[in-house]
Amino acid sequence: MLHVLTIDEALSRLLRHVRPIVRQEILPIDQCVGRVLALAIKSTVDVPGFVRSSVDGLAVRASDTFGASDSLPAMLSHVGTVQMGQIPAFAIGPGECASVPTGGAIPEGADAMVMIEHVEQPGGTLCLVNRAAAPGDHLVRRGDDLQTGQTILPAGHRVRTGDIGTFAALALDRIPVIAKPRVAILSTGDELVPVGQTLLPGQVHDINSPALAALVRQAGGEANLRGIIPDQLDRLDLALKKAVSDCDLVLVSGGSSVGEKDHLQAAIAAQGQPGILFHGLAVKPGKPTLAGVADGRILLGLPGHPLAAWFMAYLLARPLILALQGAPPAGPDIVIARTTSRIPSNTGRESILPVRLAGQPDEPGSYSAEPIFTKSGLITVLSKCDGFIRIERDREGLEAGTLVAVHLLR
Amino acid sequence: MLHVLTIDEALSRLLRHVRPIVRQEILPIDQCVGRVLALAIKSTVDVPGFVRSSVDGLAVRASDTFGASDSLPAMLSHVGTVQMGQIPAFAIGPGECASVPTGGAIPEGADAMVMIEHVEQPGGTLCLVNRAAAPGDHLVRRGDDLQTGQTILPAGHRVRTGDIGTFAALALDRIPVIAKPRVAILSTGDELVPVGQTLLPGQVHDINSPALAALVRQAGGEANLRGIIPDQLDRLDLALKKAVSDCDLVLVSGGSSVGEKDHLQAAIAAQGQPGILFHGLAVKPGKPTLAGVADGRILLGLPGHPLAAWFMAYLLARPLILALQGAPPAGPDIVIARTTSRIPSNTGRESILPVRLAGQPDEPGSYSAEPIFTKSGLITVLSKCDGFIRIERDREGLEAGTLVAVHLLR
Repeated sequence: MLHVLTIDEALSRLLRHVRPIVRQEILPIDQCVGRVLALAIKSTVDVPGFVRSSVDGLAVRASDTFGASDSLPAMLSHVGTVQMGQIPAFAIGPGECASVPTGGAIPEGADAMVMIEHVEQPGGTLCLVNRAAAPGDHLVRRGDDLQTGQTILPAGHRVRTGDIGTFAALALDRIPVIAKPRVAILSTGDELVPVGQTLLPGQVHDINSPALAALVRQAGGEANLRGIIPDQLDRLDLALKKAVSDCDLVLVSGGSSVGEKDHLQAAIAAQGQPGILFHGLAVKPGKPTLAGVADGRILLGLPGHPLAAWFMAYLLARPLILALQGAPPAGPDIVIARTTSRIPSNTGRESILPVRLAGQPDEPGSYSAEPIFTKSGLITVLSKCDGFIRIERDREGLEAGTLVAVHLLR
Repeated sequence: MLHVLTIDEALSRLLRHVRPIVRQEILPIDQCVGRVLALAIKSTVDVPGFVRSSVDGLAVRASDTFGASDSLPAMLSHVGTVQMGQIPAFAIGPGECASVPTGGAIPEGADAMVMIEHVEQPGGTLCLVNRAAAPGDHLVRRGDDLQTGQTILPAGHRVRTGDIGTFAALALDRIPVIAKPRVAILSTGDELVPVGQTLLPGQVHDINSPALAALVRQAGGEANLRGIIPDQLDRLDLALKKAVSDCDLVLVSGGSSVGEKDHLQAAIAAQGQPGILFHGLAVKPGKPTLAGVADGRILLGLPGHPLAAWFMAYLLARPLILALQGAPPAGPDIVIARTTSRIPSNTGRESILPVRLAGQPDEPGSYSAEPIFTKSGLITVLSKCDGFIRIERDREGLEAGTLVAVHLLR
C-alpha cells in the first residue's frame, strides 16, 4: 500500500515546486495593503530631519540649569519662540532660553528641553527654571528614529495596515509590489450549474467556484474563473492546458474521487513533467485531494465536496499563493481554547473540525471551543464557526477540557 | 481634579452616541467580504433538494441486506446506474439495487447506500453485498443541511471569506449590505505637508492622513481625506462643520495637546450639542485624545503624534466604524504569549506597548512576546511589531515570563 501523505507532508512537497513570481507593479500607498513588497523598503532620509523637542517647554543650555531647584532656580533670559514648521533663525547663548512646542525645532546652541511645568515667568524676559536638565533631555535627535539607508521592511513582506504610516514617514507614495498570482479556478461535474441559474432536478449549484475565488483573493491572488468543465477527459485536458499556459496556479475541484467519471488524475498527469505528486491525503475531510506539476505550474485537484474543497484550499492553496508572491507563511492566526465536549476522531487520519469560540481571551485557555458537527459537512458550517481545530492522525479524539489551537477564519 | 477616563470607559461612552447607518447597497457576492449584512440571510430552498448518496456504491433496500456477511452475502439484481445531475427514471424494487456515485440522487424505493468496497459483481446483473446496511446509511436527506426559511446568518454579521460558499449554497448571487460609513480624516498642524511634497526645514510629512485612512478602510469605512487644516480656530471650525454635515464620523489628528496653537477642543465644542464628551485619557501613548458629539455625529480628536494617533484610532475609531455598520465587535484577534523581559510601566496610566512574537503556537504561552521600545515612538514600529499588549493602569510593569494577551495587527 502506498504511503498516504499528511497535509503537512503534501504542503512541503508542493512548496518545493513553487517558482516565485517576478512580475512587479507599482501601487499608490492606499492600494497596497495585503500585497507583497517586491523590494526592501529603506529609509532615504533621516527621521527626524532636525533636532526636535518631545515636550512643550524651554530650550536651554543644560549647563545653565545644573543645581537648579525650587529654592534656587536658574534665571534665564527668554530670547524667542520657535514656530511649528520653521527652523528658528536665532541661537541660544549662555544664560538664554526659548519657547519650543512639542515637535518644534531646537535652536542652535540649546542642548536640552525643560518642561513647561518646571518654569515660572515672573515678568519681562526673565524665566525661572526650578529643575536641572541633563544634556539631551526631551530631545529627539536627527536620525534618532531612522537613518538614511536603514532597511525598514524586507522584500517579501506582506503589507499590513500599520505599514502605511511607515511608508508615509519615509515619504514614499508609490510602492513596488509583486504582481498578483493568477489562479485558475475550474469546477468539474455534470451535475453542476452556475449559482445564478435555476436548478433542474438532480442538479446542484457550483459552490466551489465563488468560494475558492474568495479564498484566492484573500490570499492576495487574482481569481481567474474558468467555469464548469464537463467530466470528459478531452474537455478537461484542454481546459487544464489553457490554464497551465496562462496562470501561475491551477485549482480544479470535483472529479478526484474514484468514481467512474473521474478523469482528473489522467488529465493532470497529461499536462507534462513531473506529473502527479500525490493522490490522496490522510485527512478528513479532504481525502481525495491530488496534485501534479507541469512546466513549473502546480495543479491542485480538490474534492468536489465544498467544505472539503474549502479546507484543502485553505491549508494547501493559500500557502502556495503566498509562496508564489515570495511571502513568508502568514503570521499567527491562532488562539488557544479549551474543548467543551469529548471529540471522537478517526485514528489514522487527521481530522479537521469546525469550532465555535466563546469566552474572553484574558488568560490562556479561557476561550472555549465548541465543536460543530454536521451530517454532511455542508459549506454553511463556515458561516457558523469561528475557526477550526486539527486533530493529529494518531490521536484517538480529544477529551472535554483539552487545550487546543484554534485556527481562526477571516 | 477631573476623573480621567480609561480607554474602555471612553469607548463605552462613545458607543452610546453611535447612530447605526441605515443606508444599504446590493453587492455581487464577490465584492462583499468585510461588509456587514443589512438583512438576515435565510434559506429559500431545502439543501440538498433531493436525497443524495454520500458515497460511491449501490442504492439498496436496507431490509434486503439484513444479516449479510462475507460468508453469506445478500444477492441483489442490478437494475440501473444513476447519472450525476439527473433524477433516476427507475425505482428499486425488493431484491434490486442500482449504482449511485457520490452526490448522486437515490432512486425511489431505495433507503440506504452500500459502499462499493462491500460489493462484488461476479457477472451479469448479480451483485453480492457482504455487509448489512441500516435504513438511512450513507444518505443525505432533502433539507438535512438547510430547511426553507431557516436563518443562516443574522443581520449585522460581517461577511468573511468562508461565507461566500454559504451564499452560493443558498443560490444567492447578490447580497444586501450596509453602506460604508463615511469617515472624514483631517490633519491639523502648521508644520505638516502632504507625503508627496518635498519638506522645507522644520516641516514634517502628514503621516496621519494616509495611516488613518488605511485603518478606516480595513474596518469597512470609506476614508474621506480632507487634507491639512491650518491651526486656526475659524479654519478648523469651518472644516469640521463641513465634515459633520456630510460624514458619519470625523477623525481629526493634531492640535489636541495644550500648546498655544491648539484650537481643536474649542472647534469641536462649537459644532453643536452635547459637545465635548471627554478630553484626556489615562493611557500612554494617547493622553491628549478628546471627543465630542454634534448632531449625532462623533468627532474624535486624536493626538498629532502618529503612533499615538494610530493606536487611539485602532482602539476607539475602529470599534465605532464597526458599530456604525451595526456589526458586533470584531472577533478575537489575540494570542497568548510569555514576555521575554521585564517591562516597566507608568502606574496610573494604561500602557500600550508594541511587541514582536516568536515561537510556535502549539500550546498556551509557547509564543514569546518581545517588547519593542522606541525613543520617540516612531510610527515605523508598527512595521516591526506583530501586535501590542495593554498593561493596566494600576499595574507596576510586568516581570519577564508573564503570560500576556497580544492583540495582533493585520
